[in-house]
Amino acid sequence: MTAFLLFDDLVRATLREDLGLAGDITTDAIVPETLTASAALVARKPGVVAGLDVAIHAFRLLDPEMSVKIGRPDGAKVAAGDTIATFTGKGRALLTAERTALNFLCRLSGIATATSQLCAMIQSHKARIVCTRKTTPGLRALEKHAVRLGGGGNHRFGLDDAVLIKDNHIAIAGGIRPAVERARKHAGHLTKIEVEVDTLAQLEEAFALEVDVVLLDNMPPAMLSEAVKMIDGRCLSEASGNVSRETVAAIAATGVDLISVGWLTHSAPALDIGLDFVA
Amino acid sequence: MTAFLLFDDLVRATLREDLGLAGDITTDAIVPETLTASAALVARKPGVVAGLDVAIHAFRLLDPEMSVKIGRPDGAKVAAGDTIATFTGKGRALLTAERTALNFLCRLSGIATATSQLCAMIQSHKARIVCTRKTTPGLRALEKHAVRLGGGGNHRFGLDDAVLIKDNHIAIAGGIRPAVERARKHAGHLTKIEVEVDTLAQLEEAFALEVDVVLLDNMPPAMLSEAVKMIDGRCLSEASGNVSRETVAAIAATGVDLISVGWLTHSAPALDIGLDFVA
Amino acid sequence: MTAFLLFDDLVRATLREDLGLAGDITTDAIVPETLTASAALVARKPGVVAGLDVAIHAFRLLDPEMSVKIGRPDGAKVAAGDTIATFTGKGRALLTAERTALNFLCRLSGIATATSQLCAMIQSHKARIVCTRKTTPGLRALEKHAVRLGGGGNHRFGLDDAVLIKDNHIAIAGGIRPAVERARKHAGHLTKIEVEVDTLAQLEEAFALEVDVVLLDNMPPAMLSEAVKMIDGRCLSEASGNVSRETVAAIAATGVDLISVGWLTHSAPALDIGLDFVA
Amino acid sequence: MTAFLLFDDLVRATLREDLGLAGDITTDAIVPETLTASAALVARKPGVVAGLDVAIHAFRLLDPEMSVKIGRPDGAKVAAGDTIATFTGKGRALLTAERTALNFLCRLSGIATATSQLCAMIQSHKARIVCTRKTTPGLRALEKHAVRLGGGGNHRFGLDDAVLIKDNHIAIAGGIRPAVERARKHAGHLTKIEVEVDTLAQLEEAFALEVDVVLLDNMPPAMLSEAVKMIDGRCLSEASGNVSRETVAAIAATGVDLISVGWLTHSAPALDIGLDFVA
Amino acid sequence: MTAFLLFDDLVRATLREDLGLAGDITTDAIVPETLTASAALVARKPGVVAGLDVAIHAFRLLDPEMSVKIGRPDGAKVAAGDTIATFTGKGRALLTAERTALNFLCRLSGIATATSQLCAMIQSHKARIVCTRKTTPGLRALEKHAVRLGGGGNHRFGLDDAVLIKDNHIAIAGGIRPAVERARKHAGHLTKIEVEVDTLAQLEEAFALEVDVVLLDNMPPAMLSEAVKMIDGRCLSEASGNVSRETVAAIAATGVDLISVGWLTHSAPALDIGLDFVA
Amino acid sequence: MTAFLLFDDLVRATLREDLGLAGDITTDAIVPETLTASAALVARKPGVVAGLDVAIHAFRLLDPEMSVKIGRPDGAKVAAGDTIATFTGKGRALLTAERTALNFLCRLSGIATATSQLCAMIQSHKARIVCTRKTTPGLRALEKHAVRLGGGGNHRFGLDDAVLIKDNHIAIAGGIRPAVERARKHAGHLTKIEVEVDTLAQLEEAFALEVDVVLLDNMPPAMLSEAVKMIDGRCLSEASGNVSRETVAAIAATGVDLISVGWLTHSAPALDIGLDFVA
Repeated sequence: MTAFLLFDDLVRATLREDLGLAGDITTDAIVPETLTASAALVARKPGVVAGLDVAIHAFRLLDPEMSVKIGRPDGAKVAAGDTIATFTGKGRALLTAERTALNFLCRLSGIATATSQLCAMIQSHKARIVCTRKTTPGLRALEKHAVRLGGGGNHRFGLDDAVLIKDNHIAIAGGIRPAVERARKHAGHLTKIEVEVDTLAQLEEAFALEVDVVLLDNMPPAMLSEAVKMIDGRCLSEASGNVSRETVAAIAATGVDLISVGWLTHSAPALDIGLDFVA
Repeated sequence: MTAFLLFDDLVRATLREDLGLAGDITTDAIVPETLTASAALVARKPGVVAGLDVAIHAFRLLDPEMSVKIGRPDGAKVAAGDTIATFTGKGRALLTAERTALNFLCRLSGIATATSQLCAMIQSHKARIVCTRKTTPGLRALEKHAVRLGGGGNHRFGLDDAVLIKDNHIAIAGGIRPAVERARKHAGHLTKIEVEVDTLAQLEEAFALEVDVVLLDNMPPAMLSEAVKMIDGRCLSEASGNVSRETVAAIAATGVDLISVGWLTHSAPALDIGLDFVA
Repeated sequence: MTAFLLFDDLVRATLREDLGLAGDITTDAIVPETLTASAALVARKPGVVAGLDVAIHAFRLLDPEMSVKIGRPDGAKVAAGDTIATFTGKGRALLTAERTALNFLCRLSGIATATSQLCAMIQSHKARIVCTRKTTPGLRALEKHAVRLGGGGNHRFGLDDAVLIKDNHIAIAGGIRPAVERARKHAGHLTKIEVEVDTLAQLEEAFALEVDVVLLDNMPPAMLSEAVKMIDGRCLSEASGNVSRETVAAIAATGVDLISVGWLTHSAPALDIGLDFVA
Repeated sequence: MTAFLLFDDLVRATLREDLGLAGDITTDAIVPETLTASAALVARKPGVVAGLDVAIHAFRLLDPEMSVKIGRPDGAKVAAGDTIATFTGKGRALLTAERTALNFLCRLSGIATATSQLCAMIQSHKARIVCTRKTTPGLRALEKHAVRLGGGGNHRFGLDDAVLIKDNHIAIAGGIRPAVERARKHAGHLTKIEVEVDTLAQLEEAFALEVDVVLLDNMPPAMLSEAVKMIDGRCLSEASGNVSRETVAAIAATGVDLISVGWLTHSAPALDIGLDFVA
Repeated sequence: MTAFLLFDDLVRATLREDLGLAGDITTDAIVPETLTASAALVARKPGVVAGLDVAIHAFRLLDPEMSVKIGRPDGAKVAAGDTIATFTGKGRALLTAERTALNFLCRLSGIATATSQLCAMIQSHKARIVCTRKTTPGLRALEKHAVRLGGGGNHRFGLDDAVLIKDNHIAIAGGIRPAVERARKHAGHLTKIEVEVDTLAQLEEAFALEVDVVLLDNMPPAMLSEAVKMIDGRCLSEASGNVSRETVAAIAATGVDLISVGWLTHSAPALDIGLDFVA
Repeated sequence: MTAFLLFDDLVRATLREDLGLAGDITTDAIVPETLTASAALVARKPGVVAGLDVAIHAFRLLDPEMSVKIGRPDGAKVAAGDTIATFTGKGRALLTAERTALNFLCRLSGIATATSQLCAMIQSHKARIVCTRKTTPGLRALEKHAVRLGGGGNHRFGLDDAVLIKDNHIAIAGGIRPAVERARKHAGHLTKIEVEVDTLAQLEEAFALEVDVVLLDNMPPAMLSEAVKMIDGRCLSEASGNVSRETVAAIAATGVDLISVGWLTHSAPALDIGLDFVA
């Protein structure tokens, strides 16, 4: 519900980025100002829709009267050829906002689609796919939302909402124990603490400190299984590193609670969606 | 040279996106304020560097005294293991800005790398790889620059800097001729005109109107060859659609002048680069 | 159509510039909050209207329900005494936004008017009046649009949308040839190249390089005529420098394609327009 | 002293307005990144300098190391050919910021020059030239400062810093007395009250209410003289309307305290200043 | 009337400050998107309402269709238990904007309430309570307005709208006379001049210079009385320093015109107002 | 360390709020531009310093060369008369930024001081004082930091960083169980869940759901003691409501873990600090 406030400025800025000072000189020259037209967002490939509200906002910033009929809302699966939404309004607005609307919609749907695919590969396991802070500058809120629409969960939204002690923090603190102790002293009562471990010995150490989550970094499945056994449900376990469509099922089979995947937000290919004018 | 003005606000906003209101609660708890440290940006995979100036700016916004030794500048090729740059300054600044710096650097280097790979595949041909307006919202200037660092060229930066008459414009105008005539009347004397054509008949029509560039959309190589022959150097030809690592050489071999590739900016995978603390 | 996005922030900021923190202390003291009134924008001098949409936006930011009846739209000629538009709405909004609305409308109409006057003086010639980048900081998009409403054309909108090689570039490059060659190598396929020349010898040199436009700087009419003859239609010619109401006809008579005029945007006097309350 | 905070954002935005997304494609192509150069701001016409600090800021935003030698500071008179300032720094910065720097400097110096000329015409009288709120959107603070540099004074900076009761306020209030009474009740103890009057009868009425200033609107000199005699120094008198180089001396001779001139800020021609590269 | 422009950005930014990137995760999880609800702003303590328009704007930014029934408008007195306004709209919007709306409303009403209390204590005297520039960063316009709603007046809105010569200015100038003379020379014709004096000797000196207001700083009532007698109505007198609920009546009884109170805006306790859901 | 990015824009905006368009007309008139001066921030009352870095930034925005000698840094206790910091630089900068610097410093130090006083009253107990989201619009990050400097802790920074289920959420969900279940399903693995309870029966219910924290709202000390006994260390307990200097010790004595206090950020009086010029 609060999304509008979070993306209004971003969509305006993106339209301005495309318009420059002279505006859409092609459309302004060719399309009569009063022409009304209809156009449909159509999936060219199968996937999961995300960012439709943002796309709609882009069109409406250029034509507040633009009407929309939604075929497949945010979070819905689409097959190639499915109509996601149909717009009717000023022809100029449709053509001028097209690229901005698609740049948001295709990227976010690509993220939701990749997330959905990974989730499907591990559905017989308890593990949950979560995204990381490896997001596109300026788009984190939207990308994190797209991961949820695809069935995944969110890791930290920023450096501020949980403690995640990584290898460099441990090295600087001189060990896991002093790192966790300093963090616990500093953190608020509503802040969870997660520690990254590379070995089972480190896991043992973190474990003794009663942290909320352990991040098992770059461990092969066999080692992950052993780690999960050691943990025995007393804290959450997160597997990280080398997660791909090929490896995700084996990782999930180790029994970890969470599998974090950076490439969902930094390298998932855009979903191919086009805008077709309707006669 | 003018880049600073173009990305200063963006980097500040991206750091704020990661910091929230509470800041980096892990680092603030664990790392002493006065600790000085060194860390190196190291390529984990081979590629082309882009966005190093942006990454440097991110670190310096948190520590203006941060010193940098550049190993591989923007535009340079890197092998896995190569050090791109080494930073020395406040340990907190290194840890807190790490993700922001990498989110820019990995994305932009990924674009430069993919561009470079495509360019290498067609180096025996005259065709040039160019990117499109299918860019990430807010990052267009940086992404277009990354394409250049990878050896490619830029298509339009926005709707404002050239006329590109697409299928929907033609349909609305009632043909190529009226579309081009309206555009020519509207356009300034420094504005070039490009027309998208789907068939050789359309090409003929556009051609007679002396447009500057024809966009040959989704044509198979044989048809492209025929188009190039028809054009015979009297205007520029651009091939678009279905350009992949597999198809690009065959397309270039047709003799087209330009090959535009949307996925360079919307779906090129990030280049894997890490920040390693130096003992 | 896209204008709203381009001037919304500007009009809000201009109203705030006038309101300060205390607002319109005169109107707030004297005019009852519920008073409805009507007022008309009336031309005090003849000219061409430009900026009416901006003026309307200023009033509506203070009273979204403000109704408008347009008498003479953007681009229309007005005689002294003509009513451009009549507004009905909150009396306070009319009085408080009056100066902001007029500051935009009078300036932009002044530019359109001066442009229109120059165009009328050369209507028997093919030359087109174009404006330059000598615009008011922050108002370039609006001022360029006003020139079009007055019948003129636009030169570059910025440093980014065409190459214009000037004397200093030539001096640094060590000649016209190296300058043009560097620019051509750097420029995209949709970017035109213009070169400024001061002598016929330079013209010859530029000409041989097949540039798109030559800027004939500060040449007297006789020299311009000779230049036009030399060019013989093979590229566009632009006359620049010392263009005034007195000289423009003679310049146009030389046969140049374009006459660029800096003072249209930096020194055209505002058109006198007032806001008259209607009983 | 506080000027920097007031124009920093404005100069940045103006440079961005000129750079677009692609930047200065001519300079970037032709001028080597490491080239150092010198260039001088030279007056082409006589006048008064204003906005030099803004121009310097424009150059330094692109090259923070740019050195400046000031020849004629803000407020100084210049003859044609005088060097205002000489800059030494990156050649690219000089060329890219040139237009932005000049657009500020020429406009503001034009205002200072026109003000200075009017002031010179009335120097044997006590009247002071003051500017109005008819300023360029976004530039009010700078333009008001330019008027002062030219020897003039400032009227209200906005709707918030003094009460100015105009004809429409009087009409709505039902007379001068109720208007002044409402304003006095609303205004703070540090707020002065000025009333616009069109007739001597109105003057009498305003006068009886002990307002701080009366604005004598569009009165011919003879009537102004009579008004001044009536006032007899008991409040300030301001003449407004039809003030030109031709009429200003006669108006000043009537003995009014202030002469307000809208065109100083909305229609004063820019002062011709150029940037000459120094060998 | 102009308030909307003055607080729209502020309320948006404050909502974003509370929402972060993830938004209201409690409400989004628990409250169905389609649920409609009603809730009332209810005073828990007696006071004066201020900021209701701001609170309404906060709710409407999250639900533009939110309906409002106002019980006690801005400026009204409320008893504990009084309903200030009742809202009906999306349940999520009510819960998510609640804290933002209350943070504005309670603070501003606290200021209005404290002002009203002080005013009541001196109502038999002519003195007026005025606030200072000791306001909350970013909220000055709203806080100054709240003081007026509570029955007080406003001192300067900023450093720009009147001259106030303080002790340090006098020390630097080398005396009251040179300070006032420099200020008078610099100030516009609509700018009043106030001088801070600490002793009756200084008062005498200021007085002779015909300043508009004297600020009698930190004087005990007896000395204030003497000062008022000396002034004898020839300029305004302002008492400042040590103004509390305990001292204000005695200060007013001295006959001063104005009593300025910094703590009204920097330390007045918030008025306790809650949002109660209506069954 | 990251603070600069979080308050730079805010301090600039606050200075602009005070400067308006005309700037500090008193100081500009009276103080020579080249005058150097020294001034000291001196506590007039005892307390705890917070916001000194913000105050320093305000002075340096007007004089980047301003030197500072810190006497009592952020977090330090001060007695009346203690010098917090001494500044040497442009006299104009000291006078013009004085109010902005003090408005931040006094407010934030007031919060730190009040926090410190409450903490001192409960130091023999384990309870920790924490602040709420009842902060000043725009200042939350700074105010939360001030609470920490005073020895307290922070509750949620926003609606996004933890789940806090309040009475209205429970009512809408139809009970504590469904509310907690919905929240747990929605929340990320690093998000803690807190539930507000008004009765011991509700406590029992929340308790069974293994929430992380229970907020014991408005319970008298005896009931709090009973609640603490029931909880028996199995989750954190937070007391809220009616916390004052008079009641805080009794509340802490009940053994609760946290005591949240809204008025620390919305109603703590500013600490009296002045700027004294040094001869």
